[in-house]
Amino acid sequence: MRATTIHAPGDIRFEEVADPRIEEPTDAVVRVSAGCICGSDLWPYRGFNDVTAGDTIGHECVGVVEEVGSEVTSVAPGDFVIVPFCHSDNTCVHCRAGVQSACVNGGFTASGQGELARVVQADGTLVGTGATPDPPLIPSLLALSDVMPTGWHAAISAGVRSGSTVVVVGDGAVGLCGVLAAVQLGAERVVAMSRHESRQAIARQFGATDVIAERGKEGAALVKELTGGVGADAVLECVGTDDSMRLAFSVARPGATVGFVGVPHGVELPVGRMFAKNVGLRGGVAPVRKYLPDLLERVLSGSLDPGPVFDLTLPMEQAAEGYRAMDERRAVKVLLQP
Amino acid sequence: MRATTIHAPGDIRFEEVADPRIEEPTDAVVRVSAGCICGSDLWPYRGFNDVTAGDTIGHECVGVVEEVGSEVTSVAPGDFVIVPFCHSDNTCVHCRAGVQSACVNGGFTASGQGELARVVQADGTLVGTGATPDPPLIPSLLALSDVMPTGWHAAISAGVRSGSTVVVVGDGAVGLCGVLAAVQLGAERVVAMSRHESRQAIARQFGATDVIAERGKEGAALVKELTGGVGADAVLECVGTDDSMRLAFSVARPGATVGFVGVPHGVELPVGRMFAKNVGLRGGVAPVRKYLPDLLERVLSGSLDPGPVFDLTLPMEQAAEGYRAMDERRAVKVLLQP
Repeated sequence: MRATTIHAPGDIRFEEVADPRIEEPTDAVVRVSAGCICGSDLWPYRGFNDVTAGDTIGHECVGVVEEVGSEVTSVAPGDFVIVPFCHSDNTCVHCRAGVQSACVNGGFTASGQGELARVVQADGTLVGTGATPDPPLIPSLLALSDVMPTGWHAAISAGVRSGSTVVVVGDGAVGLCGVLAAVQLGAERVVAMSRHESRQAIARQFGATDVIAERGKEGAALVKELTGGVGADAVLECVGTDDSMRLAFSVARPGATVGFVGVPHGVELPVGRMFAKNVGLRGGVAPVRKYLPDLLERVLSGSLDPGPVFDLTLPMEQAAEGYRAMDERRAVKVLLQP
Repeated sequence: MRATTIHAPGDIRFEEVADPRIEEPTDAVVRVSAGCICGSDLWPYRGFNDVTAGDTIGHECVGVVEEVGSEVTSVAPGDFVIVPFCHSDNTCVHCRAGVQSACVNGGFTASGQGELARVVQADGTLVGTGATPDPPLIPSLLALSDVMPTGWHAAISAGVRSGSTVVVVGDGAVGLCGVLAAVQLGAERVVAMSRHESRQAIARQFGATDVIAERGKEGAALVKELTGGVGADAVLECVGTDDSMRLAFSVARPGATVGFVGVPHGVELPVGRMFAKNVGLRGGVAPVRKYLPDLLERVLSGSLDPGPVFDLTLPMEQAAEGYRAMDERRAVKVLLQP
């Protein structure tokens, strides 16, 4: 099959690689209908993570089951499925507690930007959509493989509830899905911190009531002003840098929680402030599988539509251009079609 | 009046100082029935915090209202009251949200180890016990001014609930109250990390099901073993050092929360581990006033008895010996009688 590979920072190719195949009786192979590029794929692309030349890249997709191992019972060839970015047996002690991203047999899905994807622990990982979805639904379903449940995890971790005032730090696809999650969970006021006009527009489309373009102390002062000097009930940190984390804590009201889903890079947590202000921190790698049944129902019923985070669609052979577009912030998130 | 003062690290005196008096119409003056020494009083005693020579020290007491300002309506002279270690108006936006320790008009109570105590914002701070309590109840009521609600805050922040497996790091008075809080909140298994025999005994008396004397990696390994390799549902961090925080995170299961109430000194939070394992952190300065009505009812009804944390009672003029006893770990917590 053909798949997207990385050979060095900045060197993305779409080329022939070995077909994935059933290696364990619990595996499935999925023919990819749509894959996408994740913000976290940009870390190796930008040289911040190590790269093994020729490795496939990508970990989110939706598609049709092509083949299953002998022990797989919950999905069958022909089923349309969502492939979460991390796999899980969904039976271990951590999965049963709703932390499938810490499954004792877990790990990250190792494909999604190729024509086929091998999914391990298919029964505990894949969620079928029932009938094959209409093509216009594909972007929203694809968003369920990572960014939407990740934004949801930020909102749940931050304790967003009906009537909350929420600040979302980060206007990438996850931050935008965080806006959507906060709105779905009943937040009354959702402030998107965003300085890119195209992203501000998506944030507003997703229900943000306010947009603040300023960062740092200036941005924090504007949040304070907007909230009558009080600060936010819940803050979603969707970036992962020290600056964004600092901003998140500076806009949280006493007793609030920061929900964090941006992979931390160089973050030093302000433990003194957290203590003095009683501001908590919760979050981490999103347990996609936990949230999937609920989110899928919302998408299929038409009440949730995260599809607009994909503002650029390319054929998979142009994956390299997709990476460039995301790296240069010309695109929020790129959908790749095989 | 006579009160305990600090003149330099290690230099505690009990001497004549100016009588506290009503300075604002919202003040009250309380005649102290019992005061005590706090673990946090040891920070200046040991030279870790700055000291202004001759300052009074202490911030926890119970006693009888002597005089009230013209605007005070909720307590009257003769009432027996509990004086929380921080004062609050109990009407501001943060108080109404249950974070009285972040009251916009808040601050720390500035007396408690003297014969009289000035309490500001008396209506929002003091809680009366109704009838004057029998003397044997005094230690339990005194514990409500700080350590018991602080241990409670750790347990609430950590999300302890019915059936939880809880680990308590720290066997000081707050840690022991954390054990008691976890038990009261329905925890099924409560592991006290304690290497002092006298404290282990109090922990067991308070309902700890297991005691682990080991620290660091050895202690963490024993918790793992006790919990079938899973870790604790909730961890109470009641010390505030980097070692204790590290231990707290190392015994938390994925998805757990560390509730922290030890004032952080030199703590560097393990943000990478928190993210990878989805282990949260919540807590801070305990909103005593929030928990007081509930905890007082429990003490008066006989269902809660934190009194045994006071294992040494001294006349107030021997305050210096009380500090030495706590500094040298000969006493868990010292009750001072005027």
